[in-house]
Amino acid sequence: MSEKTPPRSRRRRLMPRRRGKPGTPPGTLTPNPQAPPPTIRVVAYGPTTHDEATLTSVAELRGWLTRPGSLWVDVAGLGDVDAIRQLGELFGLHPLALEDVVNTHQRPKLEQYGEHLFAVARMLHDQQSLESEQLALFVAPRFVVTFQERLDDDLAPVRERLRRPGSLVRERGTDYLAYAILDDVVDHYFPVLDRLGERLEGLEERITEGGGAELLHQIRDVKHDLQVVRRAAWPLRDLLNAALRETSAPVTAETRLYLRDCHDHTVQAMDLVETYREIANGLMDLYLSTMSYKTNEVMKVLALIATIFIPLTFVAGIYGMNFDPASSPWNMPELDAYWGYPLVLTAMAAVGATMVLYFKRRRWL
Amino acid sequence: MSEKTPPRSRRRRLMPRRRGKPGTPPGTLTPNPQAPPPTIRVVAYGPTTHDEATLTSVAELRGWLTRPGSLWVDVAGLGDVDAIRQLGELFGLHPLALEDVVNTHQRPKLEQYGEHLFAVARMLHDQQSLESEQLALFVAPRFVVTFQERLDDDLAPVRERLRRPGSLVRERGTDYLAYAILDDVVDHYFPVLDRLGERLEGLEERITEGGGAELLHQIRDVKHDLQVVRRAAWPLRDLLNAALRETSAPVTAETRLYLRDCHDHTVQAMDLVETYREIANGLMDLYLSTMSYKTNEVMKVLALIATIFIPLTFVAGIYGMNFDPASSPWNMPELDAYWGYPLVLTAMAAVGATMVLYFKRRRWL
Amino acid sequence: MSEKTPPRSRRRRLMPRRRGKPGTPPGTLTPNPQAPPPTIRVVAYGPTTHDEATLTSVAELRGWLTRPGSLWVDVAGLGDVDAIRQLGELFGLHPLALEDVVNTHQRPKLEQYGEHLFAVARMLHDQQSLESEQLALFVAPRFVVTFQERLDDDLAPVRERLRRPGSLVRERGTDYLAYAILDDVVDHYFPVLDRLGERLEGLEERITEGGGAELLHQIRDVKHDLQVVRRAAWPLRDLLNAALRETSAPVTAETRLYLRDCHDHTVQAMDLVETYREIANGLMDLYLSTMSYKTNEVMKVLALIATIFIPLTFVAGIYGMNFDPASSPWNMPELDAYWGYPLVLTAMAAVGATMVLYFKRRRWL
Amino acid sequence: MSEKTPPRSRRRRLMPRRRGKPGTPPGTLTPNPQAPPPTIRVVAYGPTTHDEATLTSVAELRGWLTRPGSLWVDVAGLGDVDAIRQLGELFGLHPLALEDVVNTHQRPKLEQYGEHLFAVARMLHDQQSLESEQLALFVAPRFVVTFQERLDDDLAPVRERLRRPGSLVRERGTDYLAYAILDDVVDHYFPVLDRLGERLEGLEERITEGGGAELLHQIRDVKHDLQVVRRAAWPLRDLLNAALRETSAPVTAETRLYLRDCHDHTVQAMDLVETYREIANGLMDLYLSTMSYKTNEVMKVLALIATIFIPLTFVAGIYGMNFDPASSPWNMPELDAYWGYPLVLTAMAAVGATMVLYFKRRRWL
Amino acid sequence: MSEKTPPRSRRRRLMPRRRGKPGTPPGTLTPNPQAPPPTIRVVAYGPTTHDEATLTSVAELRGWLTRPGSLWVDVAGLGDVDAIRQLGELFGLHPLALEDVVNTHQRPKLEQYGEHLFAVARMLHDQQSLESEQLALFVAPRFVVTFQERLDDDLAPVRERLRRPGSLVRERGTDYLAYAILDDVVDHYFPVLDRLGERLEGLEERITEGGGAELLHQIRDVKHDLQVVRRAAWPLRDLLNAALRETSAPVTAETRLYLRDCHDHTVQAMDLVETYREIANGLMDLYLSTMSYKTNEVMKVLALIATIFIPLTFVAGIYGMNFDPASSPWNMPELDAYWGYPLVLTAMAAVGATMVLYFKRRRWL
Repeated sequence: MSEKTPPRSRRRRLMPRRRGKPGTPPGTLTPNPQAPPPTIRVVAYGPTTHDEATLTSVAELRGWLTRPGSLWVDVAGLGDVDAIRQLGELFGLHPLALEDVVNTHQRPKLEQYGEHLFAVARMLHDQQSLESEQLALFVAPRFVVTFQERLDDDLAPVRERLRRPGSLVRERGTDYLAYAILDDVVDHYFPVLDRLGERLEGLEERITEGGGAELLHQIRDVKHDLQVVRRAAWPLRDLLNAALRETSAPVTAETRLYLRDCHDHTVQAMDLVETYREIANGLMDLYLSTMSYKTNEVMKVLALIATIFIPLTFVAGIYGMNFDPASSPWNMPELDAYWGYPLVLTAMAAVGATMVLYFKRRRWL
Repeated sequence: MSEKTPPRSRRRRLMPRRRGKPGTPPGTLTPNPQAPPPTIRVVAYGPTTHDEATLTSVAELRGWLTRPGSLWVDVAGLGDVDAIRQLGELFGLHPLALEDVVNTHQRPKLEQYGEHLFAVARMLHDQQSLESEQLALFVAPRFVVTFQERLDDDLAPVRERLRRPGSLVRERGTDYLAYAILDDVVDHYFPVLDRLGERLEGLEERITEGGGAELLHQIRDVKHDLQVVRRAAWPLRDLLNAALRETSAPVTAETRLYLRDCHDHTVQAMDLVETYREIANGLMDLYLSTMSYKTNEVMKVLALIATIFIPLTFVAGIYGMNFDPASSPWNMPELDAYWGYPLVLTAMAAVGATMVLYFKRRRWL
Repeated sequence: MSEKTPPRSRRRRLMPRRRGKPGTPPGTLTPNPQAPPPTIRVVAYGPTTHDEATLTSVAELRGWLTRPGSLWVDVAGLGDVDAIRQLGELFGLHPLALEDVVNTHQRPKLEQYGEHLFAVARMLHDQQSLESEQLALFVAPRFVVTFQERLDDDLAPVRERLRRPGSLVRERGTDYLAYAILDDVVDHYFPVLDRLGERLEGLEERITEGGGAELLHQIRDVKHDLQVVRRAAWPLRDLLNAALRETSAPVTAETRLYLRDCHDHTVQAMDLVETYREIANGLMDLYLSTMSYKTNEVMKVLALIATIFIPLTFVAGIYGMNFDPASSPWNMPELDAYWGYPLVLTAMAAVGATMVLYFKRRRWL
Repeated sequence: MSEKTPPRSRRRRLMPRRRGKPGTPPGTLTPNPQAPPPTIRVVAYGPTTHDEATLTSVAELRGWLTRPGSLWVDVAGLGDVDAIRQLGELFGLHPLALEDVVNTHQRPKLEQYGEHLFAVARMLHDQQSLESEQLALFVAPRFVVTFQERLDDDLAPVRERLRRPGSLVRERGTDYLAYAILDDVVDHYFPVLDRLGERLEGLEERITEGGGAELLHQIRDVKHDLQVVRRAAWPLRDLLNAALRETSAPVTAETRLYLRDCHDHTVQAMDLVETYREIANGLMDLYLSTMSYKTNEVMKVLALIATIFIPLTFVAGIYGMNFDPASSPWNMPELDAYWGYPLVLTAMAAVGATMVLYFKRRRWL
Repeated sequence: MSEKTPPRSRRRRLMPRRRGKPGTPPGTLTPNPQAPPPTIRVVAYGPTTHDEATLTSVAELRGWLTRPGSLWVDVAGLGDVDAIRQLGELFGLHPLALEDVVNTHQRPKLEQYGEHLFAVARMLHDQQSLESEQLALFVAPRFVVTFQERLDDDLAPVRERLRRPGSLVRERGTDYLAYAILDDVVDHYFPVLDRLGERLEGLEERITEGGGAELLHQIRDVKHDLQVVRRAAWPLRDLLNAALRETSAPVTAETRLYLRDCHDHTVQAMDLVETYREIANGLMDLYLSTMSYKTNEVMKVLALIATIFIPLTFVAGIYGMNFDPASSPWNMPELDAYWGYPLVLTAMAAVGATMVLYFKRRRWL
């Protein structure tokens, strides 16, 4: 019987904490000391042109602004608040939106600030534990600016597609690029969900085989991870809904078709999350009822054994009493009887057998 | 007492997995190596004409396009991505919709692409385990194109009706054919639900008769199957709702009456699903409380038996002590008393009877 | 202790089954071999005229069609599909609606077919088990046609009112007659609910008095019956809501006042159903916690008795050992001690009393 | 250990029953034999005038109708159906509304009948058990008619305010009086809720102190009373919402401000009800887990004691066997050994101590 | 084994009680004897001017009214009902709104009274127990009047920002000041939520380590605190939603951007509350299943030990019987057998070992 208190499979904080002291004025960019310094990847592209570079300072960006075609500025790492503020001034981004960029615990949302749209989405990273990273996205007719928390890149496929001449993303406007980025984010939810589905299948098997208390913790882990996906996907659906209804400049009718497709994928992801949550809850119940079934079975068998032997032991106890047959003819004359011992043994066997039969009849055994 | 860990009645994957690597551009048709090669069944029909054939290549279809009347192209088997792409070009189907055709884990939905409507529904197959197969449906004024995953045919009744001259489906447009196909899909939900209802009835009986732990797994199985039906029927209801509100070309007012009827059937199916889910949950509770009731009864009887004999055994133990009456007049003088043994036996019987009476009075026995 | 597996209070099918094979064309009237043959009761009425008859064939109806005033044709028994089809042709009823008439497992609903309204409601029959019967209702400006499954008549009060000259139902149009019929259906829900309420009260009392496992089944029965009422009343509310919003011909403004009243009654019935469901759930919990409380009490007392005697029996066992005092002065010299036996008895009594006191102190006894 | 089956704190009917046989025509006033005879209190008032009287017959009312200013007729006691019908004719009240007045189990609602508004609210009476009484209210530009079930008066404060010259209720129209009456009804919900809150606090304390099974019944009682409040307040909220949207004659814009305030109070009451329900559910859980915690503790200690002594008793049993050392050197030579007895006792002590230590180590003791 | 009844971590009233007797006319200001006397802090400000003072009487305020720019009057302490009434007259505040100011248990809400907006929000104070304090807020084009219950100031950061020349709050109108105050209130929710999150993390760890019954109470405490936050934040969201849709004078389009940001923060807070509630519920389940798992383990081991020894003790009891071998050759000849004793011991050992093996095989040990 395993004895250790069930180990938590991993430590994690329940929820990220909001930085920033209460009472700071709106639009204040509170620096996060742990955030890595920014790397700026810039792509200037059009149907026939494509140029990309990795910059280290915002100043180098200025030259790119005057190029023809569209521009995608991707900032990875939010450690340098000043750089972000300069970028905001360069592209005319609203201070409230910039505050949300730095404060990386936003829910996905879509907001209109003057002529540019501001969207927040969450990318999932499934390394040791499932974490979600904020992706902030500004879309204007001429440029897209994205802010990622870390350098490791989920957006590489989009960048790759931009390099291929003739690809749709080259031929369309910034709204399509923004769609491509969001679609890429949603696409990455599915491998995560697949892994969670596999873990649930594995857990079901182990519960049926009679696993221990650590399974309960693993179910809770999966449920926590599903929560993380849910918190990323649920408001993203609202975001895409809002984008579909958005009739202002940046979003064209044709891109809307693609956004609808992306919305569809998000709904599919949510569907999977809900299904998995139900399955996880079912596993919890299965685990508890399996465990209690097993315990009941054990206890019942043991109780039956005890019950059969206790009356027999009592009879043996009777004939172990030391009443003196010599003092009185009423004192345990059985002890001197010729067939005394065999009769008592037979009686015991009979009592035991009757009880076993009775228990069998009542289907207790 | 049965001992085996309860067997899972059958292995299944929790949810189908989405193929396609994250980051592939939208509209990419990822081939599924396990999908069977396509069989193309084509029907050209009108009030007075009817012609059908089974083709093996898309090229043969060209001749059919110029015929008068309406055309139904039914593709079963999605193993040949190129053929599907050619079909798409032939009929002007949107790449995003074609991607959904190949990616067979779509939720039922209705989408408008230019002049044609695109619908996805799910057919149920109740063989070893309940599975759902995707049916994709394009409706345009002149043609209907359907894509099924497998060759075995749920749509045979529709085909049969097309062969009968004078049937409504011959006399009306493609929108009515599309309705007939969807209605056929919904009609097939009911036998599945009937079988699930019968299984629930059987389970209720077996629980009441005191079945074992495998019942829990069977209830879970039924709940899983209800989930499958639910995932097929629930969004189908939304689809039909959307179709009822659809005022663009393909859907005529008269067909709308029929779609309302089909919508009604879907609601009825959903109703059954919800009722069965509630019944399944009730059975789960019934099973658990029946089991715990039984265990309680067993334990109570056993505990009572033990409790009656333990004090008696103690008394017998007392008179089994070896204190030497010879050493002292205080040492167990009872052992030499004339009525010692009978009195002790009587006392024991009295104690036992009192306890039994007491337990009966408190209704424990 | 009662032993029988708790009896199911009555057998019932979980849900009625839909007849009709998948794939039959819409509007097909599938005959139900168990349905009784139709009895046609016809009433022709107006403010000053009233005439009624029971017909046996549809042909006899023709003469009634030309009479002045309004006409109510009430068909009880759906066993003759041909007669229903003839009736449909006579009154111009839509085939889809007729299909619903025959297929008696419709949810209550209201549908507009051309110039007539088609409504389905469910009447409750509380004989051995609670069952619901379908009432189909066609309303046109000149006639009302109703279809009941059985002959025994819930609509007698309406018929009675039609016979009284000067009653509202005589003076108003067919819409008011339709209201009167629906109101009559709803009125019959309340005695059913009253009986269910009384059963719940009785169950509460019996649980508190400590009833057995059969109570659980009776609670389930009541819950099942509440479900039947709910499935009848819930969509009826929607039906009446739709009728209140209906602005087309048959429903006049004055009748709408009465429909609102009927809607109100339906809401009241739903309210009772919800309250009773909550009470039934509460009883379930009460039953389970009462039972587990009782078992706990029993087990605790028994465990305490056992626990007190087990150490004492051990002591008696010690002095029942046969070590030979003659072999060594260390071998059980107590057995020969002058106060040996009384001291041991006193010690045992002291240990027992201490344990009882200790258990009392900790409030275990 | 308390033994009595937990007493139900009081008997009550689960729900009031609807009188009136099914099938009675709408607008029929079914007399309730238990209802007290009506007392009619009439107040004629205006900014400068005020006159009140208690009448015993409807006929006396006629003289009051011609007075200038507004009129409030308050009927307490619904025992005289004829008087109510006469009142209805006098003021032109709709028969359907009058039926609801007499049938005192209406849900709160607001209905427009021609030029007068008809409202039903429920007043709470917290005497032995919490009961709700129906208040029916007709508002027309010149008069307010209220019907209460009983004479004991919750509306005294309104009557008092009407007596004070210069009070708002004197200066405004009948709509304000109607508001004042409804506000008074809602105001009386709060003392009831306060008492329920106090009972919940008391229950929490007693559960923590380890109360018995009667607490469960008391929690159920509180939950039942909360249900009564809920059923009174919830539809009242809808009623006030409807009144706020009501743009027809009786309700002026200024009164709407006050109705909004009253709506606010109702929402606050509902809020309290929901909070208390949650607390009551939490107490239920707390009670159950406290009880099961206690039982577990008891059982564990007892099981440990038994477990320690059972092996020791076995050892004592061994040396109580009567194998004859004289017959063979192998027969229990220990019994004659010089250190036999002390060694066995020591061994027993060692085994017992080891077990206690082991149990302590595993934190079972 | 810890024995004390689990201590309630702190006493608290379940819910604040509403003062004010039922039946008092609307707009009555009922004094609360425990409320502290008011301190009036006034700030007159404009883009270039700033002046502040702490007054002790309403009379001193008159001089400030004529100053140019905007005015913020902040009243802390509601002990002086007369002063509040005078303030109401000075600024033209509606009596119903003033009643809500004094009656400090309002739900957050936004109401329009003529030309000024009236808002109620709740500030959280996390001292010994989490409490919420009412903040009432009047906004008109020229002034903001706030009423706090206590003097200790959550609004200090806003006052501080007003002192800084060039800050946004100086340059914008009273609507922006109102926003700044509300935003400050919401900002203070997050440290509270962070502390609750930390407590939940701590609780999870202690449950896994096997804590006692007091954990249950602590989880309940956290859930109660979450309820307090929820009741503050949930209606605040509605308030801000209403403010966003408010198109009347005080709220400008630019301020609306900021209100949207504040709304966003409230949604984030609600999100955290919901997540924490789910986690707390999960902890409850974890606690209960951990506890029952532990008890099960203990009981199982103990039952196994008892079960192994009970049959052995029975055998020892057999050979402790005193049948006299001298009286008959059938009377316990084993006792005189040469290998009797060793054989019996061996048999016992064999039986014990078999049982242990059997239990191990069935994975009970």
